[in-house]
Amino acid sequence: MSIWFTEKQTEHFGITAEITQTYVSEQTEFQKLDVVETKEFGNMLLLDGMVMTTEKDEFVYHEMMAHVPLHTHPNPEHVLVVGGGDGGVIREILKHPEVKTATLVEIDGRVIECSKEYLPSIAGSLDDPRVTVKVADGFMHIAESTEAYDVIMVDSTEPVGPAVNLFTRGFYEGISKALKPDGVFVAQTDNPWFQKELTGSAFRDIQETFPVTRLYTANIPTYPSGLWTFTLGSKVYDPLQVDEERYHAFETNYYTRAIHHAAFVLPKFVQDVLRGDA
Amino acid sequence: MSIWFTEKQTEHFGITAEITQTYVSEQTEFQKLDVVETKEFGNMLLLDGMVMTTEKDEFVYHEMMAHVPLHTHPNPEHVLVVGGGDGGVIREILKHPEVKTATLVEIDGRVIECSKEYLPSIAGSLDDPRVTVKVADGFMHIAESTEAYDVIMVDSTEPVGPAVNLFTRGFYEGISKALKPDGVFVAQTDNPWFQKELTGSAFRDIQETFPVTRLYTANIPTYPSGLWTFTLGSKVYDPLQVDEERYHAFETNYYTRAIHHAAFVLPKFVQDVLRGDA
Repeated sequence: MSIWFTEKQTEHFGITAEITQTYVSEQTEFQKLDVVETKEFGNMLLLDGMVMTTEKDEFVYHEMMAHVPLHTHPNPEHVLVVGGGDGGVIREILKHPEVKTATLVEIDGRVIECSKEYLPSIAGSLDDPRVTVKVADGFMHIAESTEAYDVIMVDSTEPVGPAVNLFTRGFYEGISKALKPDGVFVAQTDNPWFQKELTGSAFRDIQETFPVTRLYTANIPTYPSGLWTFTLGSKVYDPLQVDEERYHAFETNYYTRAIHHAAFVLPKFVQDVLRGDA
Repeated sequence: MSIWFTEKQTEHFGITAEITQTYVSEQTEFQKLDVVETKEFGNMLLLDGMVMTTEKDEFVYHEMMAHVPLHTHPNPEHVLVVGGGDGGVIREILKHPEVKTATLVEIDGRVIECSKEYLPSIAGSLDDPRVTVKVADGFMHIAESTEAYDVIMVDSTEPVGPAVNLFTRGFYEGISKALKPDGVFVAQTDNPWFQKELTGSAFRDIQETFPVTRLYTANIPTYPSGLWTFTLGSKVYDPLQVDEERYHAFETNYYTRAIHHAAFVLPKFVQDVLRGDA
C-alpha cells in the first residue's frame, strides 16, 4: 500500500505526495497541524492542510525572506519575525553579523515544538542566545511596539485562520510604527497565478504605507504555482541600491548577490497583477 | 461527482487537476495522447500522461523558448522547430519581422491535428504562409540538413518515447551542422529539482558542442517544480550581449527585455547542478 496526501492549492488543482510516516496530526488551539515524512521532500510541516515547509526546498523561502531585506538595511541590529515558528527565517537571520537580537513572535507554540522535534535542521537556531521566542499574537505585538526594530519579516500562513489580520492596511501601518525611522519590512504575498487579487492588493496596500515598495519572486516547488512573491516595504533604503560592501559571503543554496537583483525583475503578467490590470 | 487526473511528476510526487471534459484519449503511432478540459488551466494537452501545454500558462514556455534565441541572433530569417506540434512556439516566432521561413518538424501528426482542433489559440498560426509543417522524425531532419537554419529550437517531450534521441551529444552535433556558421540553438532541458542529472548533463553536452552555452529559467506552474530550464547554444552571439535595437516591442505576457537578462541569473543550487556538483 502506498499513502498519498493531497493539498488542493485551489478549488480545482492540487499537489500530491507519497507519505511514509505521520509524526503529528492534531488540532492545536489555532489550526490543524500535521508533520509527515514524504519520499520526495523529506519531513514536511502542514498547517490547515497547506504545505508550510519541507526539508528539501525550505532553503528557498527562508533565504529569500531573510537576506533581501537584511542586505537592504545598512545595519540591521534588531530584527522581528512575525510567524515563522519553524525557525527557518531565524536561522538565516543569524548568518548576518550585524544582528544583535532576533525576536520571533509565533501565535502557535505547537508549531515551534513540533518543528524543534521533527525539523531540527530548520528550527535548530531557535535556541541561539541572540534569539527571543515569544508565543503570542503577532498583530498585538506589532500594535504594542514603537520604533523598536530595524527589520520586520512577516512569515505568515495564507490569510485564513490565525493570519487573517496580517494582510490588512491596519497591520502594515502598525508595522511602520513598530519600525525605526529607516526600517525595512518584508512579507510573503502569495502567488500571482492563483491569487492575483491577494498579491496585487497586498502590494498596493503596502505601497500606500511605505515610500519604497518592491515585489520580488522565488521558485518554491511545494508552494502553489511554484512562483512565490515577497513584498518589501522600506522607509528609506532601496533594495536595488545596495552598497557592494554590504553583501556577506555566507553559504546559501538559492540566494546570491545576482539573484538579489534578478528576483525583482518581474514577468509581464506579474507587473499587470501589481497594477490591478490582470 | 468530480473527476481528477493526476500526473506523477516523479515516482513520489504529482499534480492533480479537476477535469470537466475529455476530448481525446488515444494511443497514436508514437505515444498516448490526451486532450482534456480542466477547470483551472483550460484545455490541456498531455503526452504519455505528462502535461505538455495548457491554455492558461502556455505563454510562458512558448515566449521564453522563442524570443530569447531570436533576439540573440541579429537577423533570424530561417527558423526550425523540432517537435512543438501544438504550434505555440511557431506563433511566437512569427512575431519577429525578420523571420522569412519557419519550419516545424513534428514526429506525430496527431499532436498537430488535435492542437488545431482543441487548442486553436495556440495552434492557429500553423497555417501562416511563412510556415512549413512536416510530419517527420526531427532527428532525421537534422541529420539531413546542412547550414540551413539561423535558429533551431528543440521543443521536445522528456527523453522517453519518441524524444529519446533528442538528448544526445550526437543530436547536438547534428544541430550544429544544420545551423549556419553563426547559428543559435535552444532546447528545453527539464528542471533542476527532480531531474538534476538530466539538466546538468544536457547543459554540459551542449557546452562541448557550442562555444557560447547558457542556461536560463522560467516559471511554468504545470511543469514539475515550476522551474523550467532552457539551454541556449550559440556559435557566435551571446544572449547577454544583445544590441538595444534588436528588441521588438510586440505584446507578450511573460517575456520582457529585462526578463531576457534576469532569466539567466541562476540560483546557487542550479549553478551547482550545471557543474555536476549537486
